[in-house]
Order: sequence, then structure tokens, then C-alpha cells
Amino acid sequence: MKLSGKNIIGTEVLRSEESFVATSPLDGTVLDGRFEMAGVADVDTAIRLALVAFESFGKSSGTSRADFLERIAAEIELLGDDLLQRAHLETGLPLARLTGERGRTVTQLKMFAALAREGSWVDARIDVALPLRQPLPRCDLRRMLVPLGPVIVFGSSNFPLAFSVAGGDTASALATGNPVLVKAHRGHPGTSELVALAVRRAVAACGMHEGVFSMLHGAGNVIGQAMVVHPGSRAVGFTGSRTAGRALYDAACSRPEPIPVFAEMSSLNPVFLLSGALSLRATAIAEGLKTSMTLGVGQFCTKPGIVFAVESPEFIRFREILADLVVKTPAATMLHSDIHQSYCDSLKRVASVKEALLLASGQSQTNPAANQAVVEVRATDMKTFLSSKHLHDEVFGPFCLLVSVATHEDLSHIARTLEGQLTASVHGTENDLVEAGGLLDVLIHRAGRVIVNGFPTGVEVCHAMQHGGPYPATTDSRFTSVGGAALARFVRPVCYQDVPSAQLPEALLDNNPQGIMRSLDGVLSRDVVKPHGSSQ
Amino acid sequence: MKLSGKNIIGTEVLRSEESFVATSPLDGTVLDGRFEMAGVADVDTAIRLALVAFESFGKSSGTSRADFLERIAAEIELLGDDLLQRAHLETGLPLARLTGERGRTVTQLKMFAALAREGSWVDARIDVALPLRQPLPRCDLRRMLVPLGPVIVFGSSNFPLAFSVAGGDTASALATGNPVLVKAHRGHPGTSELVALAVRRAVAACGMHEGVFSMLHGAGNVIGQAMVVHPGSRAVGFTGSRTAGRALYDAACSRPEPIPVFAEMSSLNPVFLLSGALSLRATAIAEGLKTSMTLGVGQFCTKPGIVFAVESPEFIRFREILADLVVKTPAATMLHSDIHQSYCDSLKRVASVKEALLLASGQSQTNPAANQAVVEVRATDMKTFLSSKHLHDEVFGPFCLLVSVATHEDLSHIARTLEGQLTASVHGTENDLVEAGGLLDVLIHRAGRVIVNGFPTGVEVCHAMQHGGPYPATTDSRFTSVGGAALARFVRPVCYQDVPSAQLPEALLDNNPQGIMRSLDGVLSRDVVKPHGSSQ
Repeated sequence: MKLSGKNIIGTEVLRSEESFVATSPLDGTVLDGRFEMAGVADVDTAIRLALVAFESFGKSSGTSRADFLERIAAEIELLGDDLLQRAHLETGLPLARLTGERGRTVTQLKMFAALAREGSWVDARIDVALPLRQPLPRCDLRRMLVPLGPVIVFGSSNFPLAFSVAGGDTASALATGNPVLVKAHRGHPGTSELVALAVRRAVAACGMHEGVFSMLHGAGNVIGQAMVVHPGSRAVGFTGSRTAGRALYDAACSRPEPIPVFAEMSSLNPVFLLSGALSLRATAIAEGLKTSMTLGVGQFCTKPGIVFAVESPEFIRFREILADLVVKTPAATMLHSDIHQSYCDSLKRVASVKEALLLASGQSQTNPAANQAVVEVRATDMKTFLSSKHLHDEVFGPFCLLVSVATHEDLSHIARTLEGQLTASVHGTENDLVEAGGLLDVLIHRAGRVIVNGFPTGVEVCHAMQHGGPYPATTDSRFTSVGGAALARFVRPVCYQDVPSAQLPEALLDNNPQGIMRSLDGVLSRDVVKPHGSSQ
Repeated sequence: MKLSGKNIIGTEVLRSEESFVATSPLDGTVLDGRFEMAGVADVDTAIRLALVAFESFGKSSGTSRADFLERIAAEIELLGDDLLQRAHLETGLPLARLTGERGRTVTQLKMFAALAREGSWVDARIDVALPLRQPLPRCDLRRMLVPLGPVIVFGSSNFPLAFSVAGGDTASALATGNPVLVKAHRGHPGTSELVALAVRRAVAACGMHEGVFSMLHGAGNVIGQAMVVHPGSRAVGFTGSRTAGRALYDAACSRPEPIPVFAEMSSLNPVFLLSGALSLRATAIAEGLKTSMTLGVGQFCTKPGIVFAVESPEFIRFREILADLVVKTPAATMLHSDIHQSYCDSLKRVASVKEALLLASGQSQTNPAANQAVVEVRATDMKTFLSSKHLHDEVFGPFCLLVSVATHEDLSHIARTLEGQLTASVHGTENDLVEAGGLLDVLIHRAGRVIVNGFPTGVEVCHAMQHGGPYPATTDSRFTSVGGAALARFVRPVCYQDVPSAQLPEALLDNNPQGIMRSLDGVLSRDVVKPHGSSQ
């Protein structure tokens, strides 16, 4: 499959002078393709086109959008092994993992398609007119969610498929009627082009306006920033570093007309080990922790990065078991050389805290050109942790810090000091958990997902998932970027007052032609609205 | 009823050296009471107390919070005429209006109480474990909304009861388990004290922690700002000017850990008059417009401030009818002298646009000390409107601008140029509306509520209401400050993964003890969860 390296604005491909190449993190080789860098003027062109597309796409039917998303899924599957091979070369992620991630990407598209087709996501609420009500009549009021307009999606490095060009942000934005402009991640430009062309084929096949989807390559601090501050963009989805996420958030909030930013940024994903569980299951927990912290070379936003337990013979034994597992773990290639360098720098910063003692290191690099991360676990005490800012920062990669505290109460105390988290996990027996009631109460308010006797990696795509937590885990803890509720990010409610049925959207018509779940005078049902006046 | 003038932090009253008095806008007399100004240290005390209260209040039952809200409503009613008299003297609003507003305040408290008691607002979603699923088992995942923590509420000048100390923001924050700290509006400190003491009596009667509610008097730019940037505050509700709202929003977004701000600020509430309606109902529309724009002396956020129509003999006649109505309208007292002064200044700014011609003025002031606003209507053309920034600013008071355009298409064009609005209204016959389909499509994306053949004032408190629109109408168009959905502002979702039933909140238990509506594997019902494993 030949890569053009072009930017894609609707059906146009864009020519640029400046360009860059993709380099494989596996061995540093320069990969096929030369990718042209878009500029600020291209951002303007793409967003203007998206605004035109929004006029039709924003009011297209759920069925047509579902067909479109399913077609995108099919086009991605049609890319076959070419896509996986390119993604493997660009990210160093194993083919098995990429196969799974492609499956998730396709599943997400289909899930959002199903939600768009079913239609109840618009949260329709109908309070019919009460013309005879005393002392004042009530108007006919009908409320539903409508799309916001052009959504900016930043491809993420660690999910080249599931959180990139046609990942969860794009799928949920499109499902609800928002055109999407993607800023391709520089780490996998070829993968991005392949997926973008698949989306473009789906746009054409489904007869959508070309402006529904565009993708640009370029520098985040130039075109990414320009996308966020452009008056035509209406929301932003981002997964990446705390620094970059905050910069985008600040830019969006400083606009004359601020827009929402859903940035997922940084999380330690603390794990609390209670004494009963440590006594009973030290080996299983150590194995689970080692697997979770090294999964994907520790490059998951949900990687457990810190563990707290009361110092005890059991915790000492746990550390020994974990150390034994870690020393046997091979070094593995990270997503790109910048991330590898950043991991090495982070380890140095942590090592500069001399009371954060090295517990174990994994096996050394086998190839100096392969950007391999060496697994590392350190151990320290509560006082050191609380007084060392470096130990509170996320280390992106296969690193974990074990913190010993003196008493059970210290666990709740330390939980209160933590910044916002995507997840928090507690390992405990039934008894442990009863005694730790206060700890769970604290964690509910520090994290988006609280896990008992499990590990945070592996984010299920389902209705009850919450992937998003208090800052800095995300910029907006009220929303999730994974699961069905992710749809809620790119919509807002509109109330139609006394609007005749000829001008009402289908979802709000008396006869409920879509058969969706609606609130009728506050009661949820799929009923039709009874003839007016009968409910007075 | 004797006023103490004290600040209220929990059950404590706070002594301060600096103080101010309330002056009646009706005649400039100084009213009873000397109100002490709180300082930044008091803000810290109040929020720390609220954080302590949150530990119990945040997990209190919906029933206990419902009892609490209903008790607040009862305590407000027990204040009787003393409350209305004081509010009348402080705001100049007529007793009949204040009686209605008290009714609305009590109704809101009871509505949120009913929602809290019923319990389905937590949006519970349960996806049970699928231990045998291939290729990977699924964990047990349960998600619900939880409160955020201390909420800052700014009392508003134009609703001394319904949007102030125990108004919609406070009621919806308390209903969902968030302690509230009110910054009392300087325009009605005595009214604020009476209501705050009523709330405090309800706190005591219901055995709530004293930190659940506090109220401080003081300067917005000192203690208001301090409340918003305090690390312990978690959200902000505000209704007021665009300048003040934006300052609070900017402060909240610049925090190390940003928090949401629900500021309702500024709206022109445009009205579009289509030709058929003007031909048929010019008199009725003119009467409706005059009533709506002068209701509450034009001091509603939903006051129609601008009217667009194609220039025609019918529109000329409409203007004549409106002018006749306006000249007969008496001047009326505004909420306080600052607002009156600001109205006069706004009229001067508009008058500085010489192509914005005076169509009619209402009757003159009858008492120079009574802060009376003279009704005013001006008329201009599209070119002048588009080129004059002053004509795009909200004039808070009984002013309206009529804008003539040349063609039907100009209406959609001009609608596109408008900033975000709380409401947009269209008057038209069936035929008009068919022809104006494009206009409605535009308005859906510029306003939170779109009204056909009606006027925007009078915001129904119901399930389908949306009171909030794109910036600058509000800082967050995804939420409403009126109606049942206002609850959604002060909560966030948390997912419980594999948490044993002993540690789960009631709303997520298998047997659904509260009988609430929940999503079970994506299907809404009030069912219990079937024995685990049966759904695989």
C-alpha cells in the first residue's frame, strides 16, 4: 500500500512544502512515505468545510449516521494486514495487540452506530401544553440533544487505532452529528493516512458531505493550537500528556467563546493493598500488578503507577515476590524515541529522591536502537512520598512505586492528598473492606473508577464504563471517553417551545416514529404522546 | 423581624468591622440592618466546614435530602409577609410578583426534593460480570452519579428569591448532596439573611451537619473571587452580568485544578417576525412584545431585546402599533440604583448610533429618587445593526431594538451572525414556517430554547425546560439552570468495578431497594438484577 503523505481536507489532498518522515521505534529505520505538514491556513479551510458539512450532517438521521459508522468499520477491516503491519512498524506494538486494538476500534464504531440507529441517546423530554392550567397555562415544551458542530480530535500515541483517526472520540462525535477534524499524531502518520482514507471512502460511499471528515499532519503547537482557537470549532477530544492537554484546555477557555475540552492526561492509578489480602494472596496480587504495570510497556493511561500498603511482614514478602517477577521481565520497545527518552528522564527524576530505593529492575535492553524500556520498581515510605513532588508525577512506562505507611488510617489520609485519578484499586478481603469503608469513601471522590480486587488496565467498552476522573486525570470528570456515555460529550440540549409538528425533529413528534425512550411529563417510556389536552 | 446583619458560617455568625446598609430603590431610604462584610479568611472557614459536612452529606440518602429541602421550603413559607415586605423594599419588585416568585422558589425546592426522593437521577447503569465471556471475561461494572463537593452560589439581583440564597442553584446542589456556600447579593442583604436563617433552621431541624450551608456578605471581586479559587470549592452557579460571569469563569479555569462554572450572563433573545404573521396578527404580536419586554421592568434574562423583520407595510404598521403601546407605558422602579444607572448608560450607548432611530419612549419618571426606567424602543436597518457593536450588547431593562432587513434570506443570514442566546422566537403562520425552515435550523444552533408564536419571558419549571444557551448566554450550553435537568450540573459519574454489595451504594444493589430506573446491560428498567451468570 503506497502512502501519499498528503493532508486530507474533505475530498481534497493538500500539497505542502514542509514534510517529515516516520521512523520505526523498533530499529530506527526510516519508513516509507514523506508526510506533508499542514499550516494554519489549512486548518481554516478544513473547519470552514466542516461548518458547511454540519448544515446537512448535523440534521442527518441516526440511521444514515449508523450506516456511515458501520461503513467506516468495514473500510478499516478491508485495510487488512497492511494497516496492522504499518502500525506495528510505526509504534512497535506487537501485531497481536494491534489486532485486538483494531477489533476494539471496529467494535466502538459499531456500538456508536447502534446507539445512533436506536436513537434514544437524544434524551427526548416532552411536557405537553396545559392550556387550561391555573393560574397560568403551560406551553408545549420538548427538549432533545443536538450536535455542537465541528469537533477537533487529536490522535493519541498509545492507541494508534482505538484513540486516533477513527477512534472513540471520532466515532462518538460522528455518531451524534458532528463533523470531525483530526490532528494526526506524528508518531504514526502512515497508520493515520490509511485510516483517514478508509473514512474518506466511507464518506463517499454514504453520500455524506466531504467536509464531515478531514485530517491534517503537522506540529501540535501550531496547527493543533490553531484548530482549538478557530472560531468554527466547537469541542476538542485529546489524549496525551498533562502539559499538552492543559495548553489546549487553556487555549479553549481563553477563546472569546470558550469551548469544551475533553483531555485525558495523567493518572497514577493508585493501588491500595489491605492486610488480609496481602496475607492470603501476595503472589497472585504481585503477578497481577506486574502484568498490569508492564502491559503495553506501561503505556496505558490506566497503568498502576503507585501502590500503598501498611508496612508489615506480608508487605515485605509481597515486595520480594514482585522483585523476583520484575527482574525476569524483558525490556520492550516503547512507542517512539521521544517517549522512551521521556521515560528515561522520568526514572532519573524519581531516582533523584534518594529515599525512593530501587527494589528491582527488569532485564536490560537487547538492542540500543530499539527504544526499549527497562521495567523498574522502587519503594519508599509515606513521609518521603508526601514530601517529594517528583513522586506524584505520572511516569509513562513500566514503572511503579511502592509506598509503605505506618497505619491503616494513613491509607485514607494519603488517599486524600492524591490528585484526581482515572482509577483507584483496593485489594482486600471481606473484612479488610469493611474496615476500609472510609478509604473507599475517599477514593470515590478522587477517581472515576474504583476497582476491588482487580487491576485498572483493560477498559471495558460498555454502558456502565466511566473513563475519566477529577483533574488532572481529565479536564472534565463529568464525562467519559469510553463506553456508550461518551456520546454525551459532543451535544447540548435544545428546548422547542410550541413548535408545530411540521417543524419538529422526528425524535420529538407525538407519534414517536423512531420508537425511542422518552420522558413524557417526567415518566420514561416509548409511548406516543396522547392527544393534547388529555393529560390535564 | 430584626436583622442581625451577620454572616453565617454553619451555625456560627461571624463578626466583622466593615459593614454596609441596604437602600430601597423605591425612594432611596436606608433600610433596617447593618450588614457586616466577610473577608477571605471567612471564605476559607466556610469552605473547610463545607468539606467536613460533605463527608456525611455527600452520602446521605435521597430521602433525607428531600426532607431537608421540603423543610427549607416550609421555613421560607413560615417567614410570611415579612420576607415579601423586605424583598419589596430592597428590590422595588411589586408584592404580587414577589408572592409569585416565592411560590416558584418553594415549588423548585419541592421539585428537587421529589427528584432526590425518587432517586433515578443518579443514572445508575449496571453491566454485570460475564466470567465465561470469550476471549476475555467481563468484570462487574456499575456506574452512578455522585456529588462534586462544596458548590458556590452567587445570589442574583433580579430574582431575590428564586435565583438567590435558596433558589434553583442552591436547591439543585443540595438535592444531589453538595454543601452550598452562598455569596449574598448586595442588592437584597436583608432578604438574603431571612432566607439564610430559614435554611439554617432547616439544617438544625433535619440534623444535617452545620457546614452544609453558609452565606457570606461582601464584595464580589474579593470574597466571590476567593470562593471560586479556593481549592475546596468544586463548582460555581452564577446569574448576572457578562463581565462578572466571565471573570468568575476565567478564575475557575485558571485554577491548578479547574472547576465548572455555570454562569448565565447575557442574551438578546431575538424575535423574528415573518410576513404572514405580521399581516394577520400585528396588534397581538405588538401587545405580546410590549408585555414581554417590560415584564419585571425588562429585568429578565429572557427579555426580548431585538426584533427582526423584512421591511414592509406590515412591519411599518407593527412599529406604529408598538409605538402607541410604548408611549402609554409608565416608568417603573428598577432593582437598584446601579442597575438603573447602567440602563441609562446603555440607552446612551445605543443612542450614540445615530442610525438607530428612536421609535417611542414610555412615560417619564414620576419620582427622581425612584430609579425608574423609561421604556424605549428604537428602530434601525440591517447594515447599521451589523456594523454597530453597541447594538449587539444586551441592554438590561425595558429596551428593544427593531431591525428591518431587505429579504427573507437576510433573516437567516443575520441569525448566523448572532452570539449565543438563551432563547430565539419566531412568529409565523404555517406557511411562513415552512418557508423559514432554514431560519429555524440556524436558530437551533444559536439558542437554548426556540419558541414559535410566543415570547421568551416566563420560564416554565419542568422536565423539558432548557434554560441555557451558547456563550455568552451561558458559559456551558450543555446544562440548564431551570427544570429537573438542573440537577446534572453538580454531579459526576463514578464506576464501581467488582465492588462487593456490602460496599456498594443502594442505587447499585442487585435488588434495587429504591425501585429506581436503571440501565441493565443498556436496557432501562426498574428491575432487579437477575442472579449473576444468568445473563451470559
